[in-house]
Amino acid sequence: MTLEAFDTVDLIHAKRDGAVLTTAQIDWLVDAYTRGFVGDEQMAAMAMAIFLNGMSREEIRDLTLAMIASGETMNLSSLSKPTTDKHSTGGVGDKITLPLAPLVASFGVAVPQLSGRGLGHTGGTLDKLEAIPGWRADLSNAELHAQLEAVGAVICAAGAGLAPADKKLYALRDITGTVESIPLIASSIMSKKIAEGTSALVLDVKFGSGAFMSDIADSRELAQTMVRLGTDAGVATTALVTNMNVPLGLAIGNANEVRESVEVLAGGGPADVIELTLALAREMLASAGQPDADVEDALASGRAMDVWRAMITAQDGDPDAVLPTPKEAEVVTADRDGVLVEQQALAFGVAAWRLGAGRARKEDPVQHAAGIDLHVKPGDTVMKGQPLFTMSTDEPARFARALEALEGAYRVGDAGDEVLDGGPLIQDRVTG
Amino acid sequence: MTLEAFDTVDLIHAKRDGAVLTTAQIDWLVDAYTRGFVGDEQMAAMAMAIFLNGMSREEIRDLTLAMIASGETMNLSSLSKPTTDKHSTGGVGDKITLPLAPLVASFGVAVPQLSGRGLGHTGGTLDKLEAIPGWRADLSNAELHAQLEAVGAVICAAGAGLAPADKKLYALRDITGTVESIPLIASSIMSKKIAEGTSALVLDVKFGSGAFMSDIADSRELAQTMVRLGTDAGVATTALVTNMNVPLGLAIGNANEVRESVEVLAGGGPADVIELTLALAREMLASAGQPDADVEDALASGRAMDVWRAMITAQDGDPDAVLPTPKEAEVVTADRDGVLVEQQALAFGVAAWRLGAGRARKEDPVQHAAGIDLHVKPGDTVMKGQPLFTMSTDEPARFARALEALEGAYRVGDAGDEVLDGGPLIQDRVTG
Repeated sequence: MTLEAFDTVDLIHAKRDGAVLTTAQIDWLVDAYTRGFVGDEQMAAMAMAIFLNGMSREEIRDLTLAMIASGETMNLSSLSKPTTDKHSTGGVGDKITLPLAPLVASFGVAVPQLSGRGLGHTGGTLDKLEAIPGWRADLSNAELHAQLEAVGAVICAAGAGLAPADKKLYALRDITGTVESIPLIASSIMSKKIAEGTSALVLDVKFGSGAFMSDIADSRELAQTMVRLGTDAGVATTALVTNMNVPLGLAIGNANEVRESVEVLAGGGPADVIELTLALAREMLASAGQPDADVEDALASGRAMDVWRAMITAQDGDPDAVLPTPKEAEVVTADRDGVLVEQQALAFGVAAWRLGAGRARKEDPVQHAAGIDLHVKPGDTVMKGQPLFTMSTDEPARFARALEALEGAYRVGDAGDEVLDGGPLIQDRVTG
Repeated sequence: MTLEAFDTVDLIHAKRDGAVLTTAQIDWLVDAYTRGFVGDEQMAAMAMAIFLNGMSREEIRDLTLAMIASGETMNLSSLSKPTTDKHSTGGVGDKITLPLAPLVASFGVAVPQLSGRGLGHTGGTLDKLEAIPGWRADLSNAELHAQLEAVGAVICAAGAGLAPADKKLYALRDITGTVESIPLIASSIMSKKIAEGTSALVLDVKFGSGAFMSDIADSRELAQTMVRLGTDAGVATTALVTNMNVPLGLAIGNANEVRESVEVLAGGGPADVIELTLALAREMLASAGQPDADVEDALASGRAMDVWRAMITAQDGDPDAVLPTPKEAEVVTADRDGVLVEQQALAFGVAAWRLGAGRARKEDPVQHAAGIDLHVKPGDTVMKGQPLFTMSTDEPARFARALEALEGAYRVGDAGDEVLDGGPLIQDRVTG
């Protein structure tokens, strides 16, 4: 690719003053930024200008394609089966990838889930699976292909070679207050997903206090933007817009989220986790040509569990191993009879993070046994003294700061009080 | 000063989302940026957010005071005479400081003109004076005080210790497309001027193609913002809003601008340079308690010239030395009879810059003899073949790119055609 040369400051001025950048300008900018010719301070100013002035559909597409072009792309077309992928924008207690990937793969579909580690109050899929003794996140391309062929489901770390421009830009946005921008979020997510070479993609776009977008209108716009991007790039893409005002399921942490996922695969588990897993599985299988797949049966019959066991084993994990248990636990109980009317996702995510389930800096470790187990959900009737949730950590000094985060975040009200759970779990479906 | 600690990203979010930053937040931000705790990429995002969302009067004041507090301040109160200072926002052919400082000082007023070097198409006062053999820009504080006392006028380099936060932020804005922001320009200029310790200040705020603000409304707003800032800080401040659509005077460069300045001090020179010099001198002298000073007489009598000679001599320059002459010159002539109806300041500034009068990077040298001499001004009648301007440089290879910049920038029309000079030179006066 021969690149025309531009002046960085001219491009910043253009976006700052509301102009639309051309394909050639965006190609040059992303390439020059990846090579270090455009500085972080210049890209930070550009990111803020994009945040405040937006981008056209064409600019978002160009940015996505330029970030894909900055690195390697994977080719999954040699597989003997169709591929379908899922991405969640992240939430509290969101372990859906764990039961979902083996469930979908049990229908003969390849599910390559290239995932990340958590930062801040939302957990990372790899952190959760690393609670399983022996399990390893890093696979070579050859191992990934072989596992997709043999097992169908893979959850592993994304290689450093995919969309390096996005990695660099994401790290920059994180420290420059430019994360919550729909063009930048959409291009970041979709550049990685398109570079991964999947032929179909289902997006779980969350809204609410525990998501990074609290407003459903913003989440719907993000979903539409990403579905258009995927469709334009030839990836069959749909999205569900889902409620993240309340933690998903009963477990928030790492080892406890693996346990809850295994319960779902065994035919049990919390209703909301089952509902979202099944809805996303149906979307993925429909995009892979199986709109009538009986996903309930795959759970009930144990076929999904078989794939889970094979998937964990293939990555050197022991599906029968005892998961880590915490050194200390503290139970919080109801101070009155009534109904649980509030359980704010963000606060519970922050509390689990402070207990050690998440990390403040990239290089920090996580405590696999730390986290929160919820014993009731909004709408449940409780009696005075009944346990509401249990906090777990290896370092009891962390309890105080976790409780601080939970101040005012849960409330037992009277029967008949409005339950502040933000409504139904699945609120919208967006198609291309 | 004890500083409360803030989170940098929180502050960026606040400004990004349209909030007003508190005094404590701005103090912390500027201090942390000066110390390197807030990174350039974070300050670049903040600068773009300020550019697009603006700042309140209080925020601009706080930013200015925080930048002053980041370094040393000068104290001129021990001088036996009042001090008054002038600042121009910069233009093409703007050599006014050179005749103005000695003119005002000839009335017994101290004029400390701490100046800079040029970058881009507007020249720097120090670059111009350095065309005088032996003249030195760097003075110690003791030398500055002694010269103010003995001579009255000083034009020298601003010490590195004044408002270091502004120096750092200005360099950052230059490469991140965040220069043309009224809050950032106003606080940058006024932090240096207030730190210099003057008791009165006159601002020459330019608008037009050769200024960095083309719109008179923006320039008026900048003038008002700076006059308020000065007034709030106890500095008697006024501003003239002046037209920079056409180069000021006939000389654009360095040595040739010194020559033109000396002509004005000798009682001659172009009408526009005389007009602006006298108007600014009256403002400065009024602010120093001499509203009725006879400024024309100071030029006619040679008193201003005497101070010029003393000022140059005090800084080791030879006022009688022959100034550098260019190796090559090229004359551009009129291709028809008519009236010069256009002479765009920006294009002539860029052309002079390309001839070697200015620098592209801070570390570049300038050619003291390079530049442009205008032979006619808009409204003048010309005949076919009559010289319009002469380009000078030490490197003839530069002529072609200079001419490229001038393409369409000057035009000979018919008598009666509108002269596109942007109107009167002095268009507004702003007081506190």
